[in-house]
Amino acid sequence: MAEVHAAESRARPHLLTTPAIASAALSAELGAPVLLKCENLQHTGSFKARGALSKVLALTPDELDRGIVTALTGNHGTAVAYAGAIVGVAPLVFVPDDANPTKLAAIERHGGRVEVHGSDSVESELAARRRAEDDGITFISPYNDAAVIGGQGTIGLELLEQVPDLAAVFVAVGGGGLASGVAAAIKAAAPAVRVIGCSPATSAVMYHSLRAGAILEMPSEPTLSDGTAGGVEPGTITFGLLASLLDDFVTVEERDIRRAFLELIEMEHLLVEGSAAMAYAAARTYARDQASHAEGTTAVILSGGNVGREKLRQILAERGGE
Amino acid sequence: MAEVHAAESRARPHLLTTPAIASAALSAELGAPVLLKCENLQHTGSFKARGALSKVLALTPDELDRGIVTALTGNHGTAVAYAGAIVGVAPLVFVPDDANPTKLAAIERHGGRVEVHGSDSVESELAARRRAEDDGITFISPYNDAAVIGGQGTIGLELLEQVPDLAAVFVAVGGGGLASGVAAAIKAAAPAVRVIGCSPATSAVMYHSLRAGAILEMPSEPTLSDGTAGGVEPGTITFGLLASLLDDFVTVEERDIRRAFLELIEMEHLLVEGSAAMAYAAARTYARDQASHAEGTTAVILSGGNVGREKLRQILAERGGE
Repeated sequence: MAEVHAAESRARPHLLTTPAIASAALSAELGAPVLLKCENLQHTGSFKARGALSKVLALTPDELDRGIVTALTGNHGTAVAYAGAIVGVAPLVFVPDDANPTKLAAIERHGGRVEVHGSDSVESELAARRRAEDDGITFISPYNDAAVIGGQGTIGLELLEQVPDLAAVFVAVGGGGLASGVAAAIKAAAPAVRVIGCSPATSAVMYHSLRAGAILEMPSEPTLSDGTAGGVEPGTITFGLLASLLDDFVTVEERDIRRAFLELIEMEHLLVEGSAAMAYAAARTYARDQASHAEGTTAVILSGGNVGREKLRQILAERGGE
Repeated sequence: MAEVHAAESRARPHLLTTPAIASAALSAELGAPVLLKCENLQHTGSFKARGALSKVLALTPDELDRGIVTALTGNHGTAVAYAGAIVGVAPLVFVPDDANPTKLAAIERHGGRVEVHGSDSVESELAARRRAEDDGITFISPYNDAAVIGGQGTIGLELLEQVPDLAAVFVAVGGGGLASGVAAAIKAAAPAVRVIGCSPATSAVMYHSLRAGAILEMPSEPTLSDGTAGGVEPGTITFGLLASLLDDFVTVEERDIRRAFLELIEMEHLLVEGSAAMAYAAARTYARDQASHAEGTTAVILSGGNVGREKLRQILAERGGE
């Protein structure tokens, strides 16, 4: 929680307080107010700007002089580029050779310098860590870092202020940085508010790890919720945080994620990325499986809105589940 | 202006103050701050909720008892259904036989009763007016009504509050209800703020009418900005308002509207309808054609976000102009 407040005081001037918008469709279906916390409208189009800013603004002038390196994992590369520009540093962003050109353009637009290393995101992250060690520069982790987690937690502070009768929060879990930060911020101030993690059923490494009591290495299937896909770093501090802070955890089927994605477009007028649609679907899945509801307002964190044109075209072209 | 304040006091409890979000891409390109006023996030997904609410809340109990009828023109049908639900009246919404099923579902979800009349929006509007006369019930015009225009003007009040250094506003013009209301609100309080109307070049009936000094009947070509397409009602009060209130008027080419639509998705993370993309494109077109810029912030009104899945699929599938 101290990390959240430290992040808040460092990063606030460069962050948007994103709107929490009533969901007409989901509120009607669940019979209780549901708000959508629109991190898709945050700078760089995702919550990742919060953590990256918190981290970069915590670096010493000497560390900044030596430089910053990170890897493209989802929106994190763009967020670090954005944060770097604010402190006048052009970060190195290592990307795999099949990286999405839209993301590369976004990184470069924010002043990041792209280097291609490896053929997937694990390889480029390893290369980035190696470069950091070799050259004595700072590697910025997407989630295994207290300052990054503290930055994501500023969403929790905003929610507590925006939603006086907040009862539950649905938050997507990949590496767990977002969920750890949000849960820390909320549980410190309002322990009765339930924080519920969610992951796609096809790639729920943290979910299975928490159930097993240890971080597992396990395969992931493809998912529309690509922002939360993939493995979990051994020894990540998010594991212990989530184990102690989350009230519950729900996994979501692909067909429900896709339905949520289309419903968000057509009924809520929001274009979000798969992981955000996953959290929206999770609120529905969870309500369906519960006998009783908490009193008060449910918030769903729409973690980001970065959807490339090709991806969008693909999702719309699929006919299943309609 | 009195109508705007009356609308504000009637409708405010049921309206969202929509966010005005910085446009990173357009601000960088224009070299001056540009804010996007997100009416796509308004109830029902468009500014039309403002005018419809203002009008319905101005009806007497006796008028409400007799009932309300309107026609589906863009988002207006849904907005009237939304407003009707608030006062406990289920409006009749006349639609043409080829109406978009997504829009019909939205009207019914808000409690409106759909009736099919005619084969295009002009015919169903005529039928709705006839029904209103025959049955002594109230017809709600999409733009030719002072209470409706006053409702749209509440956007202007919000902008003046949200943007202290507001210098210019770009606002889409179809029938002219939105532009009349916004211009009235802004010019009354801050006459130096420039209000610039915009229409697609292929369907710019009000633009040509204002130049000619009289409302013209003229053909319209198809446009991605379908929310502003079509003819202008003879004798509409918006004509005189726009003639006296607008500072300038710009027409926008289809390729520029399409580019704006895709840029809003990929760079601003906003899914908007064609007429909103048209206003965004207008700010760029206008800046390109002007020798000098005003000091201060430019606001672009993103009028709505209702894009059906099929329409979205079509736009993404077209390859031209990329």
